[in-house]
Amino acid sequence: MRNVHGFLDNDVTLAFIRYGTIIVVKMMLMSTITAFFRMKKKAFVNPEDTASFGKGENAKKYLRTDPDVERVRRIHLNDLENIIPFLFAGFFYSFSGVSLSTALLHYRIFLGSRIFHTIAYLVPLPQPARGLAWMAGYLVTFSMMYKIIMIAFTMS
Amino acid sequence: MRNVHGFLDNDVTLAFIRYGTIIVVKMMLMSTITAFFRMKKKAFVNPEDTASFGKGENAKKYLRTDPDVERVRRIHLNDLENIIPFLFAGFFYSFSGVSLSTALLHYRIFLGSRIFHTIAYLVPLPQPARGLAWMAGYLVTFSMMYKIIMIAFTMS
Amino acid sequence: MRNVHGFLDNDVTLAFIRYGTIIVVKMMLMSTITAFFRMKKKAFVNPEDTASFGKGENAKKYLRTDPDVERVRRIHLNDLENIIPFLFAGFFYSFSGVSLSTALLHYRIFLGSRIFHTIAYLVPLPQPARGLAWMAGYLVTFSMMYKIIMIAFTMS
Repeated sequence: MRNVHGFLDNDVTLAFIRYGTIIVVKMMLMSTITAFFRMKKKAFVNPEDTASFGKGENAKKYLRTDPDVERVRRIHLNDLENIIPFLFAGFFYSFSGVSLSTALLHYRIFLGSRIFHTIAYLVPLPQPARGLAWMAGYLVTFSMMYKIIMIAFTMS
Repeated sequence: MRNVHGFLDNDVTLAFIRYGTIIVVKMMLMSTITAFFRMKKKAFVNPEDTASFGKGENAKKYLRTDPDVERVRRIHLNDLENIIPFLFAGFFYSFSGVSLSTALLHYRIFLGSRIFHTIAYLVPLPQPARGLAWMAGYLVTFSMMYKIIMIAFTMS
Repeated sequence: MRNVHGFLDNDVTLAFIRYGTIIVVKMMLMSTITAFFRMKKKAFVNPEDTASFGKGENAKKYLRTDPDVERVRRIHLNDLENIIPFLFAGFFYSFSGVSLSTALLHYRIFLGSRIFHTIAYLVPLPQPARGLAWMAGYLVTFSMMYKIIMIAFTMS
């Protein structure tokens, strides 16, 4: 990278960019999975999306909610709710003077927790599989937030 | 913090990190409040979440929407819609050459507006309490955006 | 801007700030459009929002979902799902050593795709107008992600 800001002199920030990118790509894939399930289950929400299935009642019957589609949409929303705080926390955490190994531990647990959360939600696995996956990522984000607060609020 | 980027030489960016962290923690707490209301009101959305309440019809009756749960979820979504623009604007605003006191005014009004918005939504307080709280944060974000536009679009 | 980080020495980052600001302002306007449609169609979700329309049954009839309101809300959620990855990718992409002209191509296609997506969703235009608009922005974000991955994962 053009090293204008020295983002890459900081190996922890480099690690954040690597893990953050994978996590955001994973979140983006939820859009594709939603589209796939909408096609497969023929369950749409906009009248213009069903026009190719014919007219009138023929098309209208595909304007419906489907449990599998809604499930994928919930995963996507849960990703937004959890990954956005991670991106904020993970970025500033990488400047907090934390060691690379500690930071990697945080980033890796978070990545693992979101991947496992998605699998547990999609299958679905019996609880508390999904709950524990979510909790792991949630606590890791709080741990990074705590470090940022400890540093940022003790500086003059 | 490891001062690789001089983020902390800039007292306005330091202020942004402080207020941004508090605001993101507040947003994250909505997940816990949602979980709390789902437990309290026994209102779940995934069949696997109700398995511990028994089988068949016994568990099925807990698959329902509850007004209080939906209320908390709306707060969370409203947070996402408003706090994400704030994080974007607040970060770049802190490099716009604005004075610390002006920036603090913006950050503090936004933090106050979101906390009051959450209280007004949860209680709920009569309107226009919630509407005004939302408006305050919205206008503060636009004010920061305006400053960024004025600076970024006049540079060569 | 106070050039503490040299953000503005980097003309690609300056371009990101310009386009990112316009895109975030566009996303924020969805809140106002939602409010406008709620007023126009008298379709609200919170009992306290309908209090000014009278009491009891008189007010209750305005607690309803309206297709136009829901349409605007879907645009807003789709914006969140797509613009957040863009902000993450676009920021780090601007440090990837990419040329200004290539970066501008990415930022401009994304901005155009989101504006056209909103118009296609609001009108609504027949499919695949909205689908192609969404796809353009989605692929551009992946293209930036790919570049970030190629750079960040090949550094020692």
